[in-house]
Amino acid sequence: MKVEYINPFIRSVGNTFSTMLNCEIRRGDIGFKSNTKPRYTVSGIIGLSGRAVGTVVLSLSKEVALKAASTMLLTEATDIDDDVLDAIGELTNIIAGGAKAELEEYELVVSLPSVITGRDHEIHFPSNVQPICIPFGTDWGEMALEVGLAQVAEPVGS
Amino acid sequence: MKVEYINPFIRSVGNTFSTMLNCEIRRGDIGFKSNTKPRYTVSGIIGLSGRAVGTVVLSLSKEVALKAASTMLLTEATDIDDDVLDAIGELTNIIAGGAKAELEEYELVVSLPSVITGRDHEIHFPSNVQPICIPFGTDWGEMALEVGLAQVAEPVGS
Repeated sequence: MKVEYINPFIRSVGNTFSTMLNCEIRRGDIGFKSNTKPRYTVSGIIGLSGRAVGTVVLSLSKEVALKAASTMLLTEATDIDDDVLDAIGELTNIIAGGAKAELEEYELVVSLPSVITGRDHEIHFPSNVQPICIPFGTDWGEMALEVGLAQVAEPVGS
Repeated sequence: MKVEYINPFIRSVGNTFSTMLNCEIRRGDIGFKSNTKPRYTVSGIIGLSGRAVGTVVLSLSKEVALKAASTMLLTEATDIDDDVLDAIGELTNIIAGGAKAELEEYELVVSLPSVITGRDHEIHFPSNVQPICIPFGTDWGEMALEVGLAQVAEPVGS
């Protein structure tokens, strides 16, 4: 995976959290994802396609998910309910959309976000794609963004 | 969700299983997905975008996953390992691609498949999308396809 794909995603996470959620984040060390298990219990997942195809996973600790959703919903969320899941899907969508805008040469389009929950869930990328994992710390708790993206010669579907 | 979206997916599952896997399938009653938990332990997930955006989830019992992967890999698979996970991702990709070909007026493109495992995993669609669930029986065991698709006025990203 090309490293130049990554910076737009890092910037988009930072911009989204600081401007929309009023929450400053600290980026940890970028690494290849060494195992399949997401670090946290709530994962927003969204597909990207165009001149590159890929998947973005925003994996949040329960604390970050509740605080982010509470800020978006303007009400105190205390459980991972449908409103919180919708908010996390929308947050994943906004982050992917922000990165997409910077990667316009790849003509990316985003799919519909889904949200996966469950303490034991694992998300496996295709083994020919080496996803990159970016951990973040926030005052609310921890989270991580995983991006797996592969360039294609021609737009898929053309 | 428009019902005309669904038939291409049903046909694609049937064609893929009969021609590629030499496995006949029996369709059960189509229904709205009433809860968030996939019926089975291995789920291939892929995003669709274009004039409609959506998500396709192929949820397989362990038995069907192993038999399908064994047929695709031309070797007996006994555990859900990386090769099996790649095969299930590819199977999801082929089914989504077959449906896409019949839905060309929506100019759909598919993203990269991911595979989710874990007995307790739940996949939540956005609450404004009512996913349709299609259960299937096979001689290998049970499986289901879930499709959530929403039309958009203009292509996303244009």
